[in-house]
Amino acid sequence: MIYLDSNATTPILPEVLEAMLPFLRDEYGNPSSGHRLGRRAAGTIAESREAVASVVGAEPTEIVFLSGGTESDNLAIKGSARKKPANGEWQIITSAVEHPAVLKTVHNLAENGYRESVIPVDLNGVVNLDTLRDALDSKTVLVSIMHSNNETGTLEPVKEIANLVKGLDERILVHTDAVQSAGKVPLDVNDLGVDLLSISAHKMYGPKGIGALYVRRGLKLDSLMTGGSHERGMRAGTENVAGIVGFGKACEIVERDIESDTARIAKLRDQFEERLLSAIPYAAINCSGADRLPGTSNVCFGSVKGETIFIQCDLQGIALSTGSACSSGSVEPSHVLTATGLDAGRAEGSIRFSFGKTNRVEDIDYLLERLPAIVEAAKTTL
Amino acid sequence: MIYLDSNATTPILPEVLEAMLPFLRDEYGNPSSGHRLGRRAAGTIAESREAVASVVGAEPTEIVFLSGGTESDNLAIKGSARKKPANGEWQIITSAVEHPAVLKTVHNLAENGYRESVIPVDLNGVVNLDTLRDALDSKTVLVSIMHSNNETGTLEPVKEIANLVKGLDERILVHTDAVQSAGKVPLDVNDLGVDLLSISAHKMYGPKGIGALYVRRGLKLDSLMTGGSHERGMRAGTENVAGIVGFGKACEIVERDIESDTARIAKLRDQFEERLLSAIPYAAINCSGADRLPGTSNVCFGSVKGETIFIQCDLQGIALSTGSACSSGSVEPSHVLTATGLDAGRAEGSIRFSFGKTNRVEDIDYLLERLPAIVEAAKTTL
Repeated sequence: MIYLDSNATTPILPEVLEAMLPFLRDEYGNPSSGHRLGRRAAGTIAESREAVASVVGAEPTEIVFLSGGTESDNLAIKGSARKKPANGEWQIITSAVEHPAVLKTVHNLAENGYRESVIPVDLNGVVNLDTLRDALDSKTVLVSIMHSNNETGTLEPVKEIANLVKGLDERILVHTDAVQSAGKVPLDVNDLGVDLLSISAHKMYGPKGIGALYVRRGLKLDSLMTGGSHERGMRAGTENVAGIVGFGKACEIVERDIESDTARIAKLRDQFEERLLSAIPYAAINCSGADRLPGTSNVCFGSVKGETIFIQCDLQGIALSTGSACSSGSVEPSHVLTATGLDAGRAEGSIRFSFGKTNRVEDIDYLLERLPAIVEAAKTTL
Repeated sequence: MIYLDSNATTPILPEVLEAMLPFLRDEYGNPSSGHRLGRRAAGTIAESREAVASVVGAEPTEIVFLSGGTESDNLAIKGSARKKPANGEWQIITSAVEHPAVLKTVHNLAENGYRESVIPVDLNGVVNLDTLRDALDSKTVLVSIMHSNNETGTLEPVKEIANLVKGLDERILVHTDAVQSAGKVPLDVNDLGVDLLSISAHKMYGPKGIGALYVRRGLKLDSLMTGGSHERGMRAGTENVAGIVGFGKACEIVERDIESDTARIAKLRDQFEERLLSAIPYAAINCSGADRLPGTSNVCFGSVKGETIFIQCDLQGIALSTGSACSSGSVEPSHVLTATGLDAGRAEGSIRFSFGKTNRVEDIDYLLERLPAIVEAAKTTL
C-alpha cells in the first residue's frame, strides 16, 4: 500500500513502540500509587513530560496530558471561556478553516452564553488580520487560530496574530491548534507568543489516544474533567502511561529528525506537484500561494467527483483523502476549501495527498503512473 | 513483588496485548478514513464494541468509547445535567462514598447552577435508601450511585435504587459507576435498570486510557467533547484503536473467566481475612457486614499510621494502598471510611488489600509472615 494520508494519522515508529512495551507489560503501576510500581510509572511520566515540553519550547509544568487533539482543543477553548460568565457578553474569535474540534466547540459555546466571531480567510487559506483586528473587543476572552491547516497545509500567521491580540489587550488568551504542525515544522510557544497550544501524538508517529495542551505558566483553566487531582487539577483520570511514554519518545525523535525529515518531505511534495501538473495540466494546487506544511498537497482536479478518484486509488492500493479524515463520510463539501473561495463542485473535486516519513520517491512514481487515467475515468463518470 | 493493589490498576493480560499489537504496528489507519486501512480499523472497533456491550448486557450501539472511567463518569453526570438549564432548580443525587470522578463532578455542577444531594451511608458503606427516597423530587435530573466501592468493596443496591427512582418518576436518569465491579461481579444494565453505566479497561486487565459509557438507547447526552462526529456525536476525537481492541479482548476474557476468577479470588480474600484476624486480633475488617466485591479487603489496624505500614510493606516488596490510588498523596483521611463512621484516626489506620487474577495463596503466606511485625512496629512509632 502507498500511504499518502499522513495528515489523517501516522504509524507508530518502531522505537516508539519499543519504549511503550514495558508499560504494556510489567510496568503496569498506577502513577498515583505510592508504592514502587506506581512511583516508577510517575517517574516515567515526568521524563516524557520533559520531552513533550521540549518539542514546543515549554516547561514541563506547562504540559497537560489528555486523550488527544480534540480534547486538547476542547479544554483550551471551553476551559478559557468558562472562566467568564455565560452571560452573552464574552466573545471567542476563531477562523473559518479550523478543525471541527475548534470550530464546533466555539459554535457550542455560542449556543451557550458566549459570542463567536469566525474570521474569513483569503484564497490561500490565510486568516484575514484586518477582520481579526476589527473583531477584537474588550469582551474577547480567547482567540483560537490554527497553526496550520489539516486539509491544505496553509500555515497561519500565529505569531503576528498573538502580537496583534496582546498588543491590544494582554488578558485576551491566544490558543493555537498545532496538531498538524507538530513534528512537521518547528514550534516554540514563546516565540509564537501563545498561551495555549494543542498537539496530538498520533499525527507525529506516536500512539492514538494521547495528546497534550500547553498551558502558559500561571494560567488556570476550567477543567473539562473533574475527579482526582491529576495533571495539576486540570485533567482528572488515571494517566495513559504507555501512551504518554510513546508520546515522549515520538517527541524525542522529532527533535532529532525534524530538520532532515522536513527537507526531504518538502522535496518529495514539490516533486509530486511539479510532475502532477505536467501530467495533468488542468489540475490546480489549492492554497499553493501560502506558506504550507512540507508534506501536504491539496489538489483540485476540476469538476470531477473526488470520491470516485479516492475509491479508484484505494482499489489500486493508494490511501489518500477527500477533505479530512475527521469529516469523511460527510456529504458536505469541505468547509476549508469553500472558505478559500472554491465552489462546491471544485471543492468536491479536490483530493488531499499528505506525505510523511515513510514515503519514498517510488511512491510518487507509482501514484503518477496511475493517477492520470484514474482522473480521466472519473471525469467521464460525472 | 506481591501486588495487592488490583483496585488501583491491573496488568494487561498477555492475550490482550497480543490483540493490541497489530494496531500498534501495521494497522495504524484512522477509523474515519474511507480507504482500506481506515475501514479495517473501523471494522475492528465494531467488533470490540460488541464485546464491551456484551459484558454489561447492552447493545453495541449503546456503548460510547472514551478515555477512561473518569471521563465516563463526567460524561454521564455533566452530559445528563446540562440537558437541563443551570437555573439552580435541577438536582443531582449521589452518595457520600463515590469516587472523586463522581463526587467532585457533582460538586462542580452544584457550583454552577445545579443542586446536589449527597446521601449518607451506613456503617457498612451502604447507601441509605430512606434518605434517598426523601431527597428525590420532581426537579431531580440524575441519581448517580456507584455499583461497588473502590476502597471498601461494598456493593450498593443499585437495582433497588433504580427501581425506587423509576417508580417515582421514569424520567429521572440513573447512573452507576461500575468501574470497580466490571470483571469482578456480573453486570447487566437491563437487570439493574440503569440508564448509564461507567466502566474502565485498566481495572479489568485491559490498557489504561480507554473506558466506556453505556448510554441507554434513545438517550442523548450533552457532549463533553465537541468536534468530529465520532461515537454517534457523543464523543469527538480520533479513536484510540489499540486501546479499544485491548478493551474488547479484556471483556471477552471476563466473559470466559469471571465465574472461576470470582470464586477463586473470593476464597483467597476470605482466607486472608481469617488468617489476618487470627494473627492480629485487634484488626477489624471495614464494611465486613456488607455484600462486597470478591477481592477487596479494607482493614483497620486501630490508631496507627497506615502510611507507615504502607511504606514498610513497599520496602518488603508488597504493593498495597492507603485509601484509593486516586487520592493517594492526600493528607485527608479517606472520605469513604469517614462516611462509614470511622474517626480520622481509624480511617488513617486502615489499609486496602485488593486481590486479583495474578494472586496466589503464596502471596498471602508472604504477606502474613511480615504484616504482624510491620503493624506492631508502626504502633510504636505513633
